[in-house]
Amino acid sequence: MTRVRLADVAKAAGVSPATVSLVLNDAESRISDETKERVRRVADEVGYLPNPIARSLRTRVTGTIGLVSDRIATTPFAGRMLAGAQEVARENGRLVILVDTDGHPEIESDAISTLVNHRVDGMVYASMYHRVMPAPAGLPAGTVFLDCRPEGGGYPAVVPDDYAGGRAATQELVDAGHTRIAYIDDGDADRPVAAQLRLQGYIDVLTEAGVEPDASLHVFAETAAAGGQLAIAELMALPEDERPTGIFAFNDRIAAGVVMWAHRRGIRIPEDLSIVGYDDQQLVAAELDPPLTTVSLPHAAMGRWAMEVALGLREADTESPHLMDCPIVRRASVGPPAPLGSARDTRVTD
Amino acid sequence: MTRVRLADVAKAAGVSPATVSLVLNDAESRISDETKERVRRVADEVGYLPNPIARSLRTRVTGTIGLVSDRIATTPFAGRMLAGAQEVARENGRLVILVDTDGHPEIESDAISTLVNHRVDGMVYASMYHRVMPAPAGLPAGTVFLDCRPEGGGYPAVVPDDYAGGRAATQELVDAGHTRIAYIDDGDADRPVAAQLRLQGYIDVLTEAGVEPDASLHVFAETAAAGGQLAIAELMALPEDERPTGIFAFNDRIAAGVVMWAHRRGIRIPEDLSIVGYDDQQLVAAELDPPLTTVSLPHAAMGRWAMEVALGLREADTESPHLMDCPIVRRASVGPPAPLGSARDTRVTD
Repeated sequence: MTRVRLADVAKAAGVSPATVSLVLNDAESRISDETKERVRRVADEVGYLPNPIARSLRTRVTGTIGLVSDRIATTPFAGRMLAGAQEVARENGRLVILVDTDGHPEIESDAISTLVNHRVDGMVYASMYHRVMPAPAGLPAGTVFLDCRPEGGGYPAVVPDDYAGGRAATQELVDAGHTRIAYIDDGDADRPVAAQLRLQGYIDVLTEAGVEPDASLHVFAETAAAGGQLAIAELMALPEDERPTGIFAFNDRIAAGVVMWAHRRGIRIPEDLSIVGYDDQQLVAAELDPPLTTVSLPHAAMGRWAMEVALGLREADTESPHLMDCPIVRRASVGPPAPLGSARDTRVTD
Repeated sequence: MTRVRLADVAKAAGVSPATVSLVLNDAESRISDETKERVRRVADEVGYLPNPIARSLRTRVTGTIGLVSDRIATTPFAGRMLAGAQEVARENGRLVILVDTDGHPEIESDAISTLVNHRVDGMVYASMYHRVMPAPAGLPAGTVFLDCRPEGGGYPAVVPDDYAGGRAATQELVDAGHTRIAYIDDGDADRPVAAQLRLQGYIDVLTEAGVEPDASLHVFAETAAAGGQLAIAELMALPEDERPTGIFAFNDRIAAGVVMWAHRRGIRIPEDLSIVGYDDQQLVAAELDPPLTTVSLPHAAMGRWAMEVALGLREADTESPHLMDCPIVRRASVGPPAPLGSARDTRVTD
């Protein structure tokens, strides 16, 4: 593919290359607003992307954005954040330079110095899951926090709206007619902020629907398929009229365990039991049988938002984080509740 | 944690800081081999890691290694390669600077220029799956190819030994007593080099075991759980005495589909049907019920190898790629074949 050149934009807009350069680099000039608008429109139409290297020579910046992360690149969980951030950078002719610190504070400090010394045009600081943390030393002003927020504010930040996500998951089950809805919560020692927010969403939706939250339906699991199997076994050991007909699982890995346990016992999903997960995790949620209804962690959208702020394309509050919507992804694991006594319980020998 | 300083090493070794610096930077000097050895041993013992920034000032290199990849960072598949490469870099006081090109040739070319201009000490070029490709223009001599190899050689390269992996998977089933062993192959249009190598391993092991490979047991699937479900349905539609008792699946996602299909029909794994996957994919293989016996793609080991070569810690042939062992990971999905007629076939309504 031939790259569209600045000269092509100039020709198509009927102005000099210098004018195009001044307009697209937002340099001070006496060019009229009309001409500026025309140049920008033409540049869009012909698909002009500034060459980062040439741009760097012109503007004395490097055309690069630094991204410091703790394991984003090495965890299967959050790659879509990077993908979203990179898309926006690419659309704007910038290159993302990533250093994954694996969570080591010394490497983080070296990474920040290296990127600052490289004179990156902007910086993003990303975490593999929603958390609140002290801002690392040496971060340039205007660094954007991605999937985490600095204690005490002071920087733009974007995190998922996990309270609204917990509401969405529970509402999906309430709308299908369920009243006995369990929440399988994150039982790990270092329980993340997201777990509490989702729980609150669950409690509030139940209460608004006139259902008293039942402590025996709030259980905890290790966040893995094995944890989900233990949790559903615990719930199904309740007397039949106290068992849940719908489950909201803290994440898709736990939900996968519930689905596997159900298959082994001939319990059909969603005919006998409905389930909603959380994360829309790649290689898990869409591949279950049936494919899982889940709440989507808006990784790509958060990545895009952070890069737009880093590039100055979007304004952001530095005092409170931007809450990104967690939409429900409807697949096939939710249906109306089964009448009492209809669920099969044909135990297969383990 | 307080960082161990160069001066601490000098004190412990009874030499001057200048001597420590000369020895650890492999600079030419008249220092005796005995002293060199003592300095290196002491540096190891006290856990000295050169500060990349200080090192950069001393040696006029940047203390950084460039890693250009096509989607490594944004795919859940290959993160362990990065993790392995980063571990070695960290152990040697270097920082990995990563640019993920998302497979765009123009971005790749900008990424290579940017890293070369940044004066990285070494470079790794990584692919998300085993492939043969033309070497991109502008790559410095000595760039290490990771999970891919350049057409015509000329660079050090490391790829998985997929032929041996295919052998290992099939041997596992032969050793358990199976003779009717199916291979569910990758049916995607752009079938990767790995698929053919694994197939050859399967054919050779069967032949050596005195089993004639049976074309009706070599089927193709989309590489996803849904593909695995269709493939196992096709195999189980064979007359009972022609059905496989063991399955080797091209990857863990296909194997997951086989396991789910079996659960829905009350077919027990491994009592009624054995299955071996490939990839040891995070969040999939170990989380199936039962946990999946699979062949491990040696992502972490390949990442470590590539970084060791990039740092000059290991010699490498530039003409033929280093083949990395793909070891079997034994979990619980393989057992002896069931006698004919014993497998359940209690069809659950879909």
